[in-house]
Amino acid sequence: MFYYVGIDLGGTNTKIGILDIEGNIYENTSIKTLSANGAQKTLERIWGTAKEIAQKSSVDIKNIKGIGIGIPGPVINQSVVAFFANFPWGQNVNIKEMMEKISGIETKLDNDVNIIALGEAKFGAAKGSKASVTIALGTGIGGGIYVDGHLISGFTGAGGEVGHMKLVMNGRLCGCGQRGCFEAYASATGLVREATSRLIVNKNNLLYEKINGKLDILEAKHIFDAAKEGDKFSLDLVDYEAEYLAMGIGNILNIINPEIIVLSGGVALAGDILINPLKEKLKKYALPVVTKDIKFVQGILGNQAGIKGSIGLFI
Amino acid sequence: MFYYVGIDLGGTNTKIGILDIEGNIYENTSIKTLSANGAQKTLERIWGTAKEIAQKSSVDIKNIKGIGIGIPGPVINQSVVAFFANFPWGQNVNIKEMMEKISGIETKLDNDVNIIALGEAKFGAAKGSKASVTIALGTGIGGGIYVDGHLISGFTGAGGEVGHMKLVMNGRLCGCGQRGCFEAYASATGLVREATSRLIVNKNNLLYEKINGKLDILEAKHIFDAAKEGDKFSLDLVDYEAEYLAMGIGNILNIINPEIIVLSGGVALAGDILINPLKEKLKKYALPVVTKDIKFVQGILGNQAGIKGSIGLFI
Repeated sequence: MFYYVGIDLGGTNTKIGILDIEGNIYENTSIKTLSANGAQKTLERIWGTAKEIAQKSSVDIKNIKGIGIGIPGPVINQSVVAFFANFPWGQNVNIKEMMEKISGIETKLDNDVNIIALGEAKFGAAKGSKASVTIALGTGIGGGIYVDGHLISGFTGAGGEVGHMKLVMNGRLCGCGQRGCFEAYASATGLVREATSRLIVNKNNLLYEKINGKLDILEAKHIFDAAKEGDKFSLDLVDYEAEYLAMGIGNILNIINPEIIVLSGGVALAGDILINPLKEKLKKYALPVVTKDIKFVQGILGNQAGIKGSIGLFI
Repeated sequence: MFYYVGIDLGGTNTKIGILDIEGNIYENTSIKTLSANGAQKTLERIWGTAKEIAQKSSVDIKNIKGIGIGIPGPVINQSVVAFFANFPWGQNVNIKEMMEKISGIETKLDNDVNIIALGEAKFGAAKGSKASVTIALGTGIGGGIYVDGHLISGFTGAGGEVGHMKLVMNGRLCGCGQRGCFEAYASATGLVREATSRLIVNKNNLLYEKINGKLDILEAKHIFDAAKEGDKFSLDLVDYEAEYLAMGIGNILNIINPEIIVLSGGVALAGDILINPLKEKLKKYALPVVTKDIKFVQGILGNQAGIKGSIGLFI
């Protein structure tokens, strides 16, 4: 029997697992990334840990057939990282080659959100579907597009960057420096931003009570919780969120026409209070032919999406 | 040597050609579609014509290995047409099966704009590129997405319907019945609509002269021609067109990250006067990682894109 090492390289922590080709995890752990030590040293330490946990689960290194890595940044041809979102590791770094020299084992990589999408498509909430789009709704909005067995990773490694699709010409400033991005409106940050701006002029609501008037502690979860308790002010914010989410997802449906949309990340946890109006509003933003059979599901792989998804690169 | 029949089924005329797998055309013709006679009779007549032109070019029917068809409507699994944009042929019609029964030859089909995209990708302006998006800018806006050898035809046959991506929330009414579509702003019709609305209040310009004040004869070409002669009023309209085109194409770049964009259709003929500001404005709408190496080219297959592209289904 053959095994694979799945690696979810993160800004702070890196998850490492020993898996089989069906995505079953035999052993896994998490270590500090300590990226300041550079790419070479960091990969060496990760490989060292991988060997340790392989031993722990009685897996012979000779039976490890591949190493899959999810990377925070654009990845070209499952090999070269154009740039790293958080690390000072330079540009156009051939991580595949570096890891293969260290380990002697075939290595493949892709962008971390693409890897999550691949995980949900191969082993998770979209398993069995020919075409799925996974949208990670958190601090930002990321995406991964899976069609006919493969990720659309993009010519320069930036396929699926749906968060920077523009919804408003000359709209709200986004963290990327451009204006009117999907992410600037419908991410958790976008929602908190809108809520904060409204709370400054309207304090007579349950949401304001819940945070004891401390605007700096406001999170998306507070808004959904207050909405679930019937707070009109918060329900209006959920409507705002659903509207921009429908416009952004509607555009994705018109362009890709997938079978299923997987929502992951904090905002997706809101559940029906958000998904129901989203589905209703979608009818304004996408053609009937792409909305009539569309399925919405929540991602199910959670913290394991990264290490599982990276194994998907070998299927 | 083996041959293929390429068919470009149109609302009024249908083009039929005898080609080889490299897209070389041995013989081709055009007949009236006469769709009112129904699917069965129309396909029989098309096949009759195909046999005639095969004979004319001394191709033995036994050496015809496949029939490819471009269809005006969403096509599922290269077989079933969800509905026809112009014909009263019903819904979910298995044209593949019907044509195979008539001809005894393997038949594959896809949406007509997807087929144009496939033609440009396999034999035309995007030949050699791994990922291209072809955008047909005419009366409407259609699109086709080609990635790693395949079209993204979509779960219900509507992949690449970029014209109905929404650029403005609650924006201009589109022919599709929804609001704010890319097509409602940046198609030839969208541009003429904007120009007409401006001409009603401003008649002191070269464009108004060119059309002798007859608003009902105004076409996109008049606008680009007047702009090329330096007419400020028309240059402003070209700027408007470039702005919405940049926003729409920028969104496609962020989502798909292709290597090349092929522009086809009447608006694409405007050339540099449109493409240069489009490229400049793109920097506002798409991430640097997806714009820095992007190539823009004009489609080169013209009228033959349909019959050539349909052969691409067999590669």
